[in-house]
Amino acid sequence: MTPSDPGRDGAASSPQRERRRFIAGGLGLAGAAASLPLASRAAAPPGAVDRAVPDDAAKVPGYPLEDESYGSRSQFETEVRQRYKTATPLSSWTFTPLQDSMGIVTPSGLFFERSHSGTAVIDPSRHTLFVHGLVARPRKFAMRDVKRFPSISRLLFLECSGNGLTEWSKPTMPTVQGTHGLTSTAEWTGVPLSTILNEVGVRSNARWLLAEGGDGAAMTRSIPIDKAMKDCLLAYGQNGEAIRPEQGYPLRLLVPGFEGNMNIKWLRRLEVADMPFMTREETSKYTDLMPSGKARQFTLEMEAKSVITSPSGDMMLDGPGFHEITGLAWSGRGTIRRVDVSTDGGQTWRPATLQNPVLPICHTRFRLPWRWDGKPAILQSRCADDTGYVQPTLGQLVAERGLNGPLGSIYHLNAIQSWAVAADGKVSNVHHY
Amino acid sequence: MTPSDPGRDGAASSPQRERRRFIAGGLGLAGAAASLPLASRAAAPPGAVDRAVPDDAAKVPGYPLEDESYGSRSQFETEVRQRYKTATPLSSWTFTPLQDSMGIVTPSGLFFERSHSGTAVIDPSRHTLFVHGLVARPRKFAMRDVKRFPSISRLLFLECSGNGLTEWSKPTMPTVQGTHGLTSTAEWTGVPLSTILNEVGVRSNARWLLAEGGDGAAMTRSIPIDKAMKDCLLAYGQNGEAIRPEQGYPLRLLVPGFEGNMNIKWLRRLEVADMPFMTREETSKYTDLMPSGKARQFTLEMEAKSVITSPSGDMMLDGPGFHEITGLAWSGRGTIRRVDVSTDGGQTWRPATLQNPVLPICHTRFRLPWRWDGKPAILQSRCADDTGYVQPTLGQLVAERGLNGPLGSIYHLNAIQSWAVAADGKVSNVHHY
Repeated sequence: MTPSDPGRDGAASSPQRERRRFIAGGLGLAGAAASLPLASRAAAPPGAVDRAVPDDAAKVPGYPLEDESYGSRSQFETEVRQRYKTATPLSSWTFTPLQDSMGIVTPSGLFFERSHSGTAVIDPSRHTLFVHGLVARPRKFAMRDVKRFPSISRLLFLECSGNGLTEWSKPTMPTVQGTHGLTSTAEWTGVPLSTILNEVGVRSNARWLLAEGGDGAAMTRSIPIDKAMKDCLLAYGQNGEAIRPEQGYPLRLLVPGFEGNMNIKWLRRLEVADMPFMTREETSKYTDLMPSGKARQFTLEMEAKSVITSPSGDMMLDGPGFHEITGLAWSGRGTIRRVDVSTDGGQTWRPATLQNPVLPICHTRFRLPWRWDGKPAILQSRCADDTGYVQPTLGQLVAERGLNGPLGSIYHLNAIQSWAVAADGKVSNVHHY
Repeated sequence: MTPSDPGRDGAASSPQRERRRFIAGGLGLAGAAASLPLASRAAAPPGAVDRAVPDDAAKVPGYPLEDESYGSRSQFETEVRQRYKTATPLSSWTFTPLQDSMGIVTPSGLFFERSHSGTAVIDPSRHTLFVHGLVARPRKFAMRDVKRFPSISRLLFLECSGNGLTEWSKPTMPTVQGTHGLTSTAEWTGVPLSTILNEVGVRSNARWLLAEGGDGAAMTRSIPIDKAMKDCLLAYGQNGEAIRPEQGYPLRLLVPGFEGNMNIKWLRRLEVADMPFMTREETSKYTDLMPSGKARQFTLEMEAKSVITSPSGDMMLDGPGFHEITGLAWSGRGTIRRVDVSTDGGQTWRPATLQNPVLPICHTRFRLPWRWDGKPAILQSRCADDTGYVQPTLGQLVAERGLNGPLGSIYHLNAIQSWAVAADGKVSNVHHY
């Protein structure tokens, strides 16, 4: 159930990496050394190429530039998305390693995944989007048709509404990858959905839109028509290139600020109607059972949330003195206006610096210098957005929502996260009311 | 000498890709089809994994989520960095495929390269930065020391000052990848250089700083101390993960807005002095020979520049009607304030829309809707930055700088680029005065 922590800065000093070191000096021609195979070659981490490591890189040529290349990361970097051990790897999710995150852009290879029937493989030259229902001119669009329309790009976060589902009743995941790793940010490019809807002519009685994915799960969700016309995006680009397969290649619906599940991947059909479609994913799932016994439905917007990514669970502070506290804040309702940080479990708070650019519906990086005195501490962050909403404590959230399922609640956990720092520097995931 | 164009939207319909199509219907169990090997399997493009393509992805499971993953792009996406065919691939450069660019972030795997002795392979646990010279407390910093300081992240473009060097006298490269592909943008994370300089205590007579790389070329450049204190960055992060090997892993100097060559990769030494060091790379190279016979030296800032990335050289417009004109603008001196676009070779201009965020010293995406009447056209873009500087025509630039080398001039070509659209829709690189 629990992803193990891939470690922080552990790559460079692990025994596995030690084996990669290569003493070029003993081999005579330094120039030749760089291309010799290693006697004991460990497999490179995912996304990396294992290369001989010279004793002094300044004394040998590096590896040559390729005629055609796409690049790869360093063999010394080992962070990976980690999968939650669901019964089947076809309906599962993987977490972004937020403990190693820097800035606000998530590398596309580490962007979290949530899929219900694996990752669909789709030939873009044969993919179509059918738009029908309460429209004047139903039409099937090929990818080249979609790409002919004016496009926009936006940096937007996505978050699975189940992010943190293990954390309602007790602290479960040891790292921030496990507690918060179902959110990531990318620069998305595509066509405003309103452009396509105007093209087909939405009828005046239209109220909802069904979005359907072209994967084996045929994932479907209902989108309010006002939201569809306001800022939804038919996205085919992610971080400056084509959207990644696991993010819905070749076409994904982006519903800015709404729960991740609505951002339908491998999008193949849009049906306009006068009521919601009551699909499985908005009736049996993705509802919130309340203490009264009633369930909230269509709780679509992701409310303001923040988390300290460093120091965070399972890290070890190497002694008292200066440590930078940094993390991410985001709101599905707008722009982060303020993040406060506490190092004493919420007794006192100091405002963190928000790093530019601070963008609506996008991860915002915050930072605060901290001089640790070597005594036990509880680190917390609390954000507020431009609607005036302030991130609640876990106590406040549980009082409102209850703990009505086997794991407590499931969706929309956006409470303040607490990290305990022990006197020996060890950081751990705790509940602190 | 000329990189061939990898094509636009060509991947999905090429014969090579056609072979990958896979009809699952004839094989009985649809579920099994997705994991069967292809009878005729073509090699996947760089950065992709070749997978069986089902006839209908909605009728079979996709491929399972991995326990630990880093991800890869779709096998249908084929754009690559292309290398300029220098005599040796160790001292060479590769161009970013700007014709396929979207938004402002360049994927790290497609970020342009310029290296003088290949890509150094460096173990970060053994890498150090030595800071000495006119300082009170010379010191060697390990990577873990560098990472302990407060950090910042910034979206910044880099541009090789030789970007466009083939284009001074006549149009040479067929595509925008060749004419302008030595610039890219990433979100960089690191420590302000001023932090480290304050730590070692810069003496009052300090005026310049030598930055030295730890690669086989031991690349060295002189940086004005005022610039070093103002906004330089010791960068270890790129687009949310460790800086890529070819960008200087584990540590690169970022000199925002200054010519690419000064952004020393694999940074291992900083020496503070009272005068510039007159290294080879700022005397025999990276100077501008003027019509008078004198050479300009230390022309460090990259001036405002823009280019239309689509439609651009070697593309084919599929008929009259609507086409979006889009491109990038940037200035080493500050923030882009305005981009104008002409479709008649500079006789008339229309303001393009600048897409948010518009950030200083960062690529800015611009867009303009265009209805092509099917007649020959000349497309141009012209930008202005917040210093009031306006991008010059090629005629204006050549009048000022002359054409004094075998290729005309070499460095700092920032003139307006012209793309000719023929009546058949073919787009080509032209000089238009």
